[in-house]
Amino acid sequence: RRRLGELVESAPVQRIVITVILLNAVVLGMETSPALMEAAGPALISIDTACLAVFVVEIGLKLTAFGWRFFRDPWNVFDFVVVGIALVPAGAGLEVLRTLRVLRVLRLISSLPQLRKVVSALLHAIPGILSTGALLALIFYVAAVMATTFFRETLPEFFGSFGASLFSLFQIATLSSWETIVRPAMDEHSWAWAFFIPFIILAAFTALNLIIAVIVDAMNT
Amino acid sequence: RRRLGELVESAPVQRIVITVILLNAVVLGMETSPALMEAAGPALISIDTACLAVFVVEIGLKLTAFGWRFFRDPWNVFDFVVVGIALVPAGAGLEVLRTLRVLRVLRLISSLPQLRKVVSALLHAIPGILSTGALLALIFYVAAVMATTFFRETLPEFFGSFGASLFSLFQIATLSSWETIVRPAMDEHSWAWAFFIPFIILAAFTALNLIIAVIVDAMNT
Amino acid sequence: RRRLGELVESAPVQRIVITVILLNAVVLGMETSPALMEAAGPALISIDTACLAVFVVEIGLKLTAFGWRFFRDPWNVFDFVVVGIALVPAGAGLEVLRTLRVLRVLRLISSLPQLRKVVSALLHAIPGILSTGALLALIFYVAAVMATTFFRETLPEFFGSFGASLFSLFQIATLSSWETIVRPAMDEHSWAWAFFIPFIILAAFTALNLIIAVIVDAMNT
Amino acid sequence: RRRLGELVESAPVQRIVITVILLNAVVLGMETSPALMEAAGPALISIDTACLAVFVVEIGLKLTAFGWRFFRDPWNVFDFVVVGIALVPAGAGLEVLRTLRVLRVLRLISSLPQLRKVVSALLHAIPGILSTGALLALIFYVAAVMATTFFRETLPEFFGSFGASLFSLFQIATLSSWETIVRPAMDEHSWAWAFFIPFIILAAFTALNLIIAVIVDAMNT
Ligand code: NA
Ligand code: NA
Repeated sequence: RRRLGELVESAPVQRIVITVILLNAVVLGMETSPALMEAAGPALISIDTACLAVFVVEIGLKLTAFGWRFFRDPWNVFDFVVVGIALVPAGAGLEVLRTLRVLRVLRLISSLPQLRKVVSALLHAIPGILSTGALLALIFYVAAVMATTFFRETLPEFFGSFGASLFSLFQIATLSSWETIVRPAMDEHSWAWAFFIPFIILAAFTALNLIIAVIVDAMNT
Repeated sequence: RRRLGELVESAPVQRIVITVILLNAVVLGMETSPALMEAAGPALISIDTACLAVFVVEIGLKLTAFGWRFFRDPWNVFDFVVVGIALVPAGAGLEVLRTLRVLRVLRLISSLPQLRKVVSALLHAIPGILSTGALLALIFYVAAVMATTFFRETLPEFFGSFGASLFSLFQIATLSSWETIVRPAMDEHSWAWAFFIPFIILAAFTALNLIIAVIVDAMNT
Repeated sequence: RRRLGELVESAPVQRIVITVILLNAVVLGMETSPALMEAAGPALISIDTACLAVFVVEIGLKLTAFGWRFFRDPWNVFDFVVVGIALVPAGAGLEVLRTLRVLRVLRLISSLPQLRKVVSALLHAIPGILSTGALLALIFYVAAVMATTFFRETLPEFFGSFGASLFSLFQIATLSSWETIVRPAMDEHSWAWAFFIPFIILAAFTALNLIIAVIVDAMNT
Repeated sequence: RRRLGELVESAPVQRIVITVILLNAVVLGMETSPALMEAAGPALISIDTACLAVFVVEIGLKLTAFGWRFFRDPWNVFDFVVVGIALVPAGAGLEVLRTLRVLRVLRLISSLPQLRKVVSALLHAIPGILSTGALLALIFYVAAVMATTFFRETLPEFFGSFGASLFSLFQIATLSSWETIVRPAMDEHSWAWAFFIPFIILAAFTALNLIIAVIVDAMNT
């Protein structure tokens, strides 16, 4: 068992797994092309299935070797889930499950130490921004309730419901053609700028502090 | 009295208050939906009123316990104002007051130490950027006077008045589809780029220094 | 003479000058409104002229007190120029000169030590970014020549001349609806993305390094 | 031979070369103007050819002086390539080669030590961002496969093929009028925001960490 574990985690076997992931990524990309699917659909699907088989065998061997300890490493859980998705019998949610198969390509992250390190760094940045993120969420929540009440009747396409308002405020906060929302709002309510411009400045200032929290955190480690 | 103060500020009571704020937030969100209001309007409004009653009692108890010292803590003043808004008798400005009720949800900030800390940090960043902010305001003021004089007649929808110019310059400074203003301006006045592109660069450079002032400040604390 | 210099630069006199600048700023803003000009045009113009007179007297006194040493302080030269503009006899370039009068408001910068400090900091940041700025200019120059040659015939409204190309590339580099240029370009030349997307990445990366140069500089002082 | 090398690399000769590069840049810019080409086309082309001759002679002398050691300096290789492009006999790819002549202007980088330093700094920043860049590429790859599968039929103009999806996702990640893609997607699939908004946040967060990697790197050197 220990030998089996050492074998599966040995450099040559891992190199094979990484090659299979890359091959599978290319095949999944090619499957998006109707032309290629018509020309070589069965071949592509066969390679796809073969790649999946390799992953299943690899994870099966690891499970045999390590037993329940396998699930102690979060990266193993990650691999187990993204590979497991493909084995769920396809039924009602067929199309979505087919699409989620591409998540298998993300195994590249768990297989390459450099990418694992980057993702770990990203995840470690999250606790430091949780409270600023919560404040930002609160600002969006309050602003969405207010915007829905103010503009529901006059601008239903942007603020017709709480969800629509949240989406429009997100667009405004990303500064993506925000004037296509605010100018029509000002045509209906001349004071609308007094709601939206402070919102933009407040959201931008809070987002800036969120970014700074990430930078300061990165500097101190 | 001291016992009363300790009771109101005790952890279990504060936990109840936070729960009521969250409940009130959900209800205020649900009240934006006409479908939900038709199905359960009276119930929602009752819960809303009950939440308000809890806040009024809490603040009343704190006032009894601490007297005028209550207003020495700015967070207490904040709570007093956002709860007080709902008690102002509704008259002419009915709709606006109804909308401002949602500000009550911001009590979450004063109730959660983590959010208080974030807001304090945001507020402490302000003095350090006041002078750069004043310079930015001055640039906008001078540019808005110039833009109104130059383009009032040829582009009245963007620069028809001082206020319209300020708004358009803010849109340009946020880089949000700024070419939809500057290209028509250049069709009328071929030299218009010589006004707007330096403005963009100057505003961006000053805003960058404002951001850097916040970063440097955050680094040194 | 020394006494005269001390008097003009004394705190009370400077406070009067700052008040006059603010008053002049408000009046210049009001003069952009046709309604206000019709209602109180002569009054506004009289106040404007009175403010100008105060500035002329102030600078005249400083010149008398300090002689040629007056021009050794660059802020004095700045004041001299922005006030002097208004005294140039209006002729052919009448309208432009009238508009430049608003630059007088920028005297607020030279009058307020806090704003002087900010502007000095901005100016001190420039040498550190000159070489990165020159590289950015070179990238734009080369890209504009290439874009004009490639797309002059198929997209004349965006790349019809060297100047038009520079403007369009600036729009693309600011990420302002850049797809409204690049998608039509790709309809004509399917390979156009291979020109524009590397340009965006290169320009963004160089601009990022320009920003970092400013940050690092600000950190070390 | 050593004397020849010293001569070619001497300050006066280098000053002549820089002048010729600047002259050539201006001429290449002027050649984009049909009006100037009609008025003085042969003259412009003659100057262009003369500049090229100077570069060929300079590189020839360096090759004579240093032999194969010439190619050890990557900047020499750079000069050799951008000048050499113009000497390739024009045939099928005539127009592209004509356009690439403008790359000669980039010799300004290798000729000016300040610009060399900036480019070296940019190149040194690359290794530090390779793994974060690879993660970003992986996110784009997986998202493009998913978007093509989801939206190929309903939004063929944006997600009709893998390449089209990559382009549209790049547009969305640059926050350039991303709502012009996501709003139509939501009209067809009400859940589309649940794909695009996490994508925006994930791409922005990863890009932020890429930027921070560059900043931290710049700070530590
Ligand atoms: Na933008
Ligand atoms: Na935009």
